[in-house]
Amino acid sequence: MYTLAKPPTSFLDAILSPAELKKLSEDQLQSLAEEIRQEVINNLSKTGGHLASNLGIVEITLGLHRTFQTPQDTILWDVGHQCYVHKMLTGRRDLFKSLRQYKGLSGFINPLESEHDAFVAGHSSTSISLAVGMAIARDHLNQNHKVIAVIGDGGLTGGMALEAINHLGHIQRNVLIILNDNEMSISANVGGFSQYMKRIKETFFYQDIKEKLDQIEGRLDRAQLTPAVWEMIMSVKKQAKERFDTPGIVFEKLGVNYSGPIDGHNVSAVIEALNKVKDLTTPQIIHIITQKGKGYEPAEKDSIKFHGVPAFSLEPPLSEKVEPSQPAKTKVKTYSDIFTQALIEIADQEPNMVAITPATAEGSGLVKFGTLFPERFFDVAICEQHAVTMAGGMAKAGLKPVVSIYSTFLQRAIDQVIHDVAILNLPVVFGIDRGGLVEDGETHQGVFDIAFMRSIPNLKVLAPRNTRELRNMLYTAVKQATGPVAIRFPRDKAVEPDEAGEFEIIDFCKWDVISTGSNRCSDNKSDAHSNMVMLAYGAMVETAKQALPLLQAAGVDATIVSARSAKPLDSELLKSLVENTSNKIVTLEEGCMAGGFGAAILEWAAQHKARNPRIKQADIAIVAIEDKFVEHGARSILLDDYGLSAAKVAKFVQDFARA
Amino acid sequence: MYTLAKPPTSFLDAILSPAELKKLSEDQLQSLAEEIRQEVINNLSKTGGHLASNLGIVEITLGLHRTFQTPQDTILWDVGHQCYVHKMLTGRRDLFKSLRQYKGLSGFINPLESEHDAFVAGHSSTSISLAVGMAIARDHLNQNHKVIAVIGDGGLTGGMALEAINHLGHIQRNVLIILNDNEMSISANVGGFSQYMKRIKETFFYQDIKEKLDQIEGRLDRAQLTPAVWEMIMSVKKQAKERFDTPGIVFEKLGVNYSGPIDGHNVSAVIEALNKVKDLTTPQIIHIITQKGKGYEPAEKDSIKFHGVPAFSLEPPLSEKVEPSQPAKTKVKTYSDIFTQALIEIADQEPNMVAITPATAEGSGLVKFGTLFPERFFDVAICEQHAVTMAGGMAKAGLKPVVSIYSTFLQRAIDQVIHDVAILNLPVVFGIDRGGLVEDGETHQGVFDIAFMRSIPNLKVLAPRNTRELRNMLYTAVKQATGPVAIRFPRDKAVEPDEAGEFEIIDFCKWDVISTGSNRCSDNKSDAHSNMVMLAYGAMVETAKQALPLLQAAGVDATIVSARSAKPLDSELLKSLVENTSNKIVTLEEGCMAGGFGAAILEWAAQHKARNPRIKQADIAIVAIEDKFVEHGARSILLDDYGLSAAKVAKFVQDFARA
Repeated sequence: MYTLAKPPTSFLDAILSPAELKKLSEDQLQSLAEEIRQEVINNLSKTGGHLASNLGIVEITLGLHRTFQTPQDTILWDVGHQCYVHKMLTGRRDLFKSLRQYKGLSGFINPLESEHDAFVAGHSSTSISLAVGMAIARDHLNQNHKVIAVIGDGGLTGGMALEAINHLGHIQRNVLIILNDNEMSISANVGGFSQYMKRIKETFFYQDIKEKLDQIEGRLDRAQLTPAVWEMIMSVKKQAKERFDTPGIVFEKLGVNYSGPIDGHNVSAVIEALNKVKDLTTPQIIHIITQKGKGYEPAEKDSIKFHGVPAFSLEPPLSEKVEPSQPAKTKVKTYSDIFTQALIEIADQEPNMVAITPATAEGSGLVKFGTLFPERFFDVAICEQHAVTMAGGMAKAGLKPVVSIYSTFLQRAIDQVIHDVAILNLPVVFGIDRGGLVEDGETHQGVFDIAFMRSIPNLKVLAPRNTRELRNMLYTAVKQATGPVAIRFPRDKAVEPDEAGEFEIIDFCKWDVISTGSNRCSDNKSDAHSNMVMLAYGAMVETAKQALPLLQAAGVDATIVSARSAKPLDSELLKSLVENTSNKIVTLEEGCMAGGFGAAILEWAAQHKARNPRIKQADIAIVAIEDKFVEHGARSILLDDYGLSAAKVAKFVQDFARA
Repeated sequence: MYTLAKPPTSFLDAILSPAELKKLSEDQLQSLAEEIRQEVINNLSKTGGHLASNLGIVEITLGLHRTFQTPQDTILWDVGHQCYVHKMLTGRRDLFKSLRQYKGLSGFINPLESEHDAFVAGHSSTSISLAVGMAIARDHLNQNHKVIAVIGDGGLTGGMALEAINHLGHIQRNVLIILNDNEMSISANVGGFSQYMKRIKETFFYQDIKEKLDQIEGRLDRAQLTPAVWEMIMSVKKQAKERFDTPGIVFEKLGVNYSGPIDGHNVSAVIEALNKVKDLTTPQIIHIITQKGKGYEPAEKDSIKFHGVPAFSLEPPLSEKVEPSQPAKTKVKTYSDIFTQALIEIADQEPNMVAITPATAEGSGLVKFGTLFPERFFDVAICEQHAVTMAGGMAKAGLKPVVSIYSTFLQRAIDQVIHDVAILNLPVVFGIDRGGLVEDGETHQGVFDIAFMRSIPNLKVLAPRNTRELRNMLYTAVKQATGPVAIRFPRDKAVEPDEAGEFEIIDFCKWDVISTGSNRCSDNKSDAHSNMVMLAYGAMVETAKQALPLLQAAGVDATIVSARSAKPLDSELLKSLVENTSNKIVTLEEGCMAGGFGAAILEWAAQHKARNPRIKQADIAIVAIEDKFVEHGARSILLDDYGLSAAKVAKFVQDFARA
């Protein structure tokens, strides 16, 4: 029974390293599995984290560590968030109280954390490519270990995983693929491939043929037939069994040997399957069926309240903490919620608007849209490239597609934005969720989108300063856009939700002066203070507003300008700001400094200066994210670390004012 | 027989639109096919172009236009360079003299050119995603036309094509896929998938089973058996035939109905196959076997001299002109040639260096490396994502991978560069070919790489000023790099090849002052001229050198600084340049202005100023490619159009000097 009281851990306590697993009997391993499950639930009730996927993979992890020997053998965990059990078994059990916390235990695999973690992961579908690369390296260096990729059925829908299988089938290296097929996952619902795998589970394809051959055999009188005919019938039966009995014929045809399906919650079955292929040197795939959330009984009873991570989503919602003893809190609305709500409202007016998501329907709130407009909702699985190009095709053919995508996953489809949307200047709207810093580790930071998108011709690169503006931007983009429009917003609570408000058409490239500093337009050059201007992009406007009283308390006033577009720029307003040499302009953005919004302002000023050499210009300073990968931490901590909290912004502006 | 004399075109002359095809008998269509082939060869002997792929697709194109009716029906040509026949049949026959020339007929499909062209293409593997999007739009808008994707076996190796098939199999929309399987293509050599398709061609999979069942049937005495047993044997045979006789079982299992293989050079067979599926509303794939270069007899006799486009490459070499009457010219060495040559030389010293190419071995010159080091050469087919992540795995496991990739195709793997190489700071070397403007239309311009790469932490973003520096950069990167290094170079002839030279270790972030202007370091503020500085990135150094005499002739001297790295910057040199207010700095780069090298200099100056507010700075102006998609044209024409020729640079610097 599930309990929050500290469960027995007598087997788990004895596991200090994977080597200890080899001392346990298979029965003891199954008991250990239950202990681990209890510990995962207990740990995550305190810290939150990816619960369901880790409960599902307990026996697979035990089987792998029992059969193979890391770090000599290499295990590549696709996506990497199902690694908690692996971490427990590889010396990190004590660190779980700091799971997914700032400077704490990473929620993903990370070789800087342990030699048992072979690579980083956070994005899906990379593990087979990594395995192929590492297997080639092993062979080249005359090493002799096993390289294993553990990938979910969702991960297998990603194009690059299919590229890798295709290549592996060709080069026939010694790679073992563990297909962790959890029936509740995204791809059980999306994709011909997963429907195919579903059929594997329901029945072997050739069962009926085999049965009929058995029946023939039973009814024929052997004595009546010549030995040659009898032998031939047996030979057909054998071939049918060998060839057609295999449910993984698709993999076999691609050159990867298939075995399965295996019950993934039976340690003995998993170990037996692993032992069978362990010493084979050809590419192998073992198809293991698991259940997400296996053994988490409260989830079974009240899956909505306790699960947090719906089956068809890859992403946890903002808070995934398991707090069974507390009443459910009223959920704070997020930018994502407002985005979906606006989409639903606009849908009634725009019958040709459709929404597309690459497997992030839950995280982006789009599930609700899908429920209301199932015919206009397309979850394409973990296929960002396909999602964007499909949207290009839709737009060309007369629809108004809105692609909801996380900033970090948009990186997968940059070429498609260029090649299949922007070149033809097609009206595809991109709702870019999780733009900026997120509490999800360095693989998920949404910091590159402004720089990437700004360099793409025809693309409008917008960011609302609050959720009210988000609504109007989305509305205007769907209603009026004649080319692609990207709207990026943070993973944060809604600001000025204004849900009941009417939509307004807005001018994308018209920036707003939010508040005017007292020194603004003063021509008194001897004034001790310059006219400070905080030129803030999107969500940083709110930060600037919070920084203003701090600045004023320190005796510095400032003007706040809300820039809703990093492209195009509001040249008129920019001209008036830049040409006033008593101004000192600080650009604020939640994105990488290299090539971002601040760079856009500098480029504009340099071109303006080149055209108007006699005009003197105001000084411009950039506040943006420095050139490094941002680690895991709460959004508020990271914003402060990277100089983007209200306090840090106030300090920067104050120093700049007094310089 | 093939002839360069004007061939007869009596059938072709009568075809003013696809509608006329319907009037011809199938025999007449086959004659028309020969006329078209002759005309393609004749045209391309003058203009160059994609010869082999267009000769291969003549009958498929005739069959499609005979069976369907564009523009009502939609044909999406994957990659788009096999569209010449389609263009001839859709009213553009007269324009072929301007094929692939500046302001001339595009070598790719382009809806701005004709309503019969449904989309743009240039990159591979997009057509099925577009078809899915357009089919959804058609159904949503209650339209009734056919949507057809024509994709090669090479295109099918791209992950996004597999994503799209997977999705199509799920949603079961009315889409017809024409798989143009040309046996000489890249993927006949690479990938389990294409090996599978090869086997389809060689034999039906279940032929032996079927034969044996036939034999059983023949030898059994029906009278000896009960009717039930006989019926059962027949039922097994029927099922075996229906289920296992299908060579396209992989497609079928993914939910797409397969027919084929069809002889793609028999118009009647093609039309028959199309007619069979024409009115079906489920997803269909027709597997058509064609031969690249079909009917081009000189190519058959001397394929090296005349083919230009080797079978395993997607890209034409610099000149693909067919000039059978002229002696072969001595080939001018290119940056690509020098890159491969250096790789070959380094390979002897670095046994753990391997080279990876995503299907561009010929264009990048890597074929030679592959011949010499087959065990260390990996052509992964059109799989940029897999290529980069595999390289990450290799580097992590101890190899020194060099990924040779075109700038425009690197766009497909930006996320993998970030997620699977840069986060772990792995020593993967990227040889980025065709960086800058190329004569290949707007889909192939290599203008985004500087901006994209510069925003990625840990990545060094280099560009050599000549091929001598390219050699040393590559050598140093392979020898000493502790993290990822990108080296981008143009599609152009080698500059200072220095092939016999020894390699030198160079300092990546040390820039060179190439020549010093006479006004440099003058403190005479009243001087009419400022100290002009051309701060040139990579190949633009050569342009700056050519601009210098033009400038001097106009009375303006200038300093030339060669910046070999857009990241990291040479802060020391930059400081001395920027802090000298008598300088006027012009940055030069062959890439998009937004976020590029010039932006890097502006960002540095802004940060320097913020830290040192009292220090005055030199004016900085950027010369880079403006924010639009660059059309097709000769590199020299485009460079001039976009202000990057020596004359235009001289003019800009001169104007800036006198401002």
